[in-house]
Amino acid sequence: MNTSRLEAFSDGVFAIAITLLVLEIKVPPPDTVLGAELLQLWPSYLAYVVSFLVIGAIWINHHAMFHHIVRVDGTLLLLNVLHLMLIAFLPFPTAVLAEAFHRGTDEPIAAAFYSSILTVIGIFVNAMWRYAAHEYRLIDPHLAAKKVRKLRRQFLFGPIAYAIATVVALVLPWLAVLLFILLNLFYLWPRWGYRSTP
Amino acid sequence: MNTSRLEAFSDGVFAIAITLLVLEIKVPPPDTVLGAELLQLWPSYLAYVVSFLVIGAIWINHHAMFHHIVRVDGTLLLLNVLHLMLIAFLPFPTAVLAEAFHRGTDEPIAAAFYSSILTVIGIFVNAMWRYAAHEYRLIDPHLAAKKVRKLRRQFLFGPIAYAIATVVALVLPWLAVLLFILLNLFYLWPRWGYRSTP
Amino acid sequence: MNTSRLEAFSDGVFAIAITLLVLEIKVPPPDTVLGAELLQLWPSYLAYVVSFLVIGAIWINHHAMFHHIVRVDGTLLLLNVLHLMLIAFLPFPTAVLAEAFHRGTDEPIAAAFYSSILTVIGIFVNAMWRYAAHEYRLIDPHLAAKKVRKLRRQFLFGPIAYAIATVVALVLPWLAVLLFILLNLFYLWPRWGYRSTP
Amino acid sequence: MNTSRLEAFSDGVFAIAITLLVLEIKVPPPDTVLGAELLQLWPSYLAYVVSFLVIGAIWINHHAMFHHIVRVDGTLLLLNVLHLMLIAFLPFPTAVLAEAFHRGTDEPIAAAFYSSILTVIGIFVNAMWRYAAHEYRLIDPHLAAKKVRKLRRQFLFGPIAYAIATVVALVLPWLAVLLFILLNLFYLWPRWGYRSTP
Repeated sequence: MNTSRLEAFSDGVFAIAITLLVLEIKVPPPDTVLGAELLQLWPSYLAYVVSFLVIGAIWINHHAMFHHIVRVDGTLLLLNVLHLMLIAFLPFPTAVLAEAFHRGTDEPIAAAFYSSILTVIGIFVNAMWRYAAHEYRLIDPHLAAKKVRKLRRQFLFGPIAYAIATVVALVLPWLAVLLFILLNLFYLWPRWGYRSTP
Repeated sequence: MNTSRLEAFSDGVFAIAITLLVLEIKVPPPDTVLGAELLQLWPSYLAYVVSFLVIGAIWINHHAMFHHIVRVDGTLLLLNVLHLMLIAFLPFPTAVLAEAFHRGTDEPIAAAFYSSILTVIGIFVNAMWRYAAHEYRLIDPHLAAKKVRKLRRQFLFGPIAYAIATVVALVLPWLAVLLFILLNLFYLWPRWGYRSTP
Repeated sequence: MNTSRLEAFSDGVFAIAITLLVLEIKVPPPDTVLGAELLQLWPSYLAYVVSFLVIGAIWINHHAMFHHIVRVDGTLLLLNVLHLMLIAFLPFPTAVLAEAFHRGTDEPIAAAFYSSILTVIGIFVNAMWRYAAHEYRLIDPHLAAKKVRKLRRQFLFGPIAYAIATVVALVLPWLAVLLFILLNLFYLWPRWGYRSTP
Repeated sequence: MNTSRLEAFSDGVFAIAITLLVLEIKVPPPDTVLGAELLQLWPSYLAYVVSFLVIGAIWINHHAMFHHIVRVDGTLLLLNVLHLMLIAFLPFPTAVLAEAFHRGTDEPIAAAFYSSILTVIGIFVNAMWRYAAHEYRLIDPHLAAKKVRKLRRQFLFGPIAYAIATVVALVLPWLAVLLFILLNLFYLWPRWGYRSTP
């Protein structure tokens, strides 16, 4: 198993998970006024946008990490499979989030559920990088030690931010959703995110 | 992130979105006459054909554009993610369109909803090209300036046509659906579409 | 657009369509005896197997054809998009076939519907080969003329067989399903199918 | 058809099947307490984790096998298509397993159904290897005879273990599910699984 094969498989899972998100948006049932129904589906649209940005940002982040990883071993492979297991799970908390905001009840639990999954994803990102970078085990030996440490700090930011968002969600679910959007626009934003570190 | 990686991921999303369209066509429920039911599903078949042609044409168009783009930066990456977010969304307005024609009510709002999504997709296509081509920022430096301008004009045609179709849809939804088909056959047609410009 | 890009996109649609087939098999509802229900789902398993073999055989056939095609033009691209439109549609007639055999009524119309889609797919296969091979327009110039004619005859076999199966289906739907299985095992069978012609 | 094309198509089916698993987890219906409902869905989460590990392990195993296979012929192609037919089927027994544990009845039949599918998958893995390795028909001629025999013994372990698990499932379904998890962690575990044999 080489890194390009692992990346191609991971890319496949990312692309499929991101495209399956739309299946959670259900067509309004007959005997409704379509225009009004399409407007009332806003929680589904919002959840779709949030999760599309989330998966898009994790995908870019995954590439940024594997740009520095030159070999794969069994442990990294296992960590990556577990990481993908959580990515591929995201359409479910996305649908739960949309459903809760649609109902107008249980938003705190839905947003906290969503955010806690992202926290665990972030922990796996850190585990992968720390395992690969430990004593240059699997990364490019020419990568500067300063850069390795910098990336380690940057990867820490994600799970901490999502852990905070999980707590926020239990009190102010709306604010948590806003945090999800801002966080991922931050990651995707040119010049700021991980990619900006060449 | 290089262009081939970005194209491969985009191709994945195109291929998945185009293949998911069929999931919106539901098998007739028991206790119906199957032959008659299969005929009554014509709005679903029509919507399937329209969206398949739409996504196929956008896919070919995407390649035609990236044929000239030689580098990717953060801004183009973000624009492309937002572009894919709308492509992957298309199975939903497709299902809404089929549902409205099946019901025989609300066709104008469904067709206008569909057409407005395509308009926004067209705007993103233009934003990507304008950003990439501005002062040859990311495109092949050997591309003739005349050709760059020609492509810019061609890309403008899409969102303008769909914006007009959106207005038409509110009055004559059938005519709008006909316009969708004609527009995309035009794009896919050998010798006429963007591909014909070598 | 080069052939490898076209093949990669086509492969994606084949892989997705073949994997989506399983979504049409629904878990038995609560308050049923699971063991008995799993047995009663045999029409779904049968339809799954038939369509998996069908798409698998068409996929292998597609590669065998593109093995000889060295260039792509707009017409071939359009024919291929229309071809893929029918491949990606197959999960629907598959579900209809399973539903009809599950109900125990309307099997003739379901099997004929299924078979007629395969007939049209076969017609597109022929159109693609004839267009590409006409005066060696897009195929390898070193391919022997005898081989070109042989392939043309072989490709003709598919739509003729499926057209016959469509008529058979209207009278003896069970025999038609048996024909689908035999036909595709024939295509997939080592030494006999198209692949055996090196 | 070369091995890289076959592997790319197989990878696509693996990636799609593994990502479709989440679609079987249904959002709790309205008029329920979301927090409690999310907890009661544990059988779905468990089945998701089991099948994700299963498909992940089979995917890695598939690569390990094709690492040694240097040519493809019609028979191997047919065996691989039949193998993929069972992989792509896995979301269904996964959903059945989750449903049975959710109901609290019929767990033995559901777990035995699941396990028997995995047994058949394992039999196909063995058939593929034995066919390819027989008198070095399709494998690397430099592979040591000792290694070929070792791999043959290793591949035998899977279907035997799953056949035993099928019997166990009929009596102690919980123990069978535990066996599925342990077996696949064993396969995925660094240093132990097939990958550890370089």
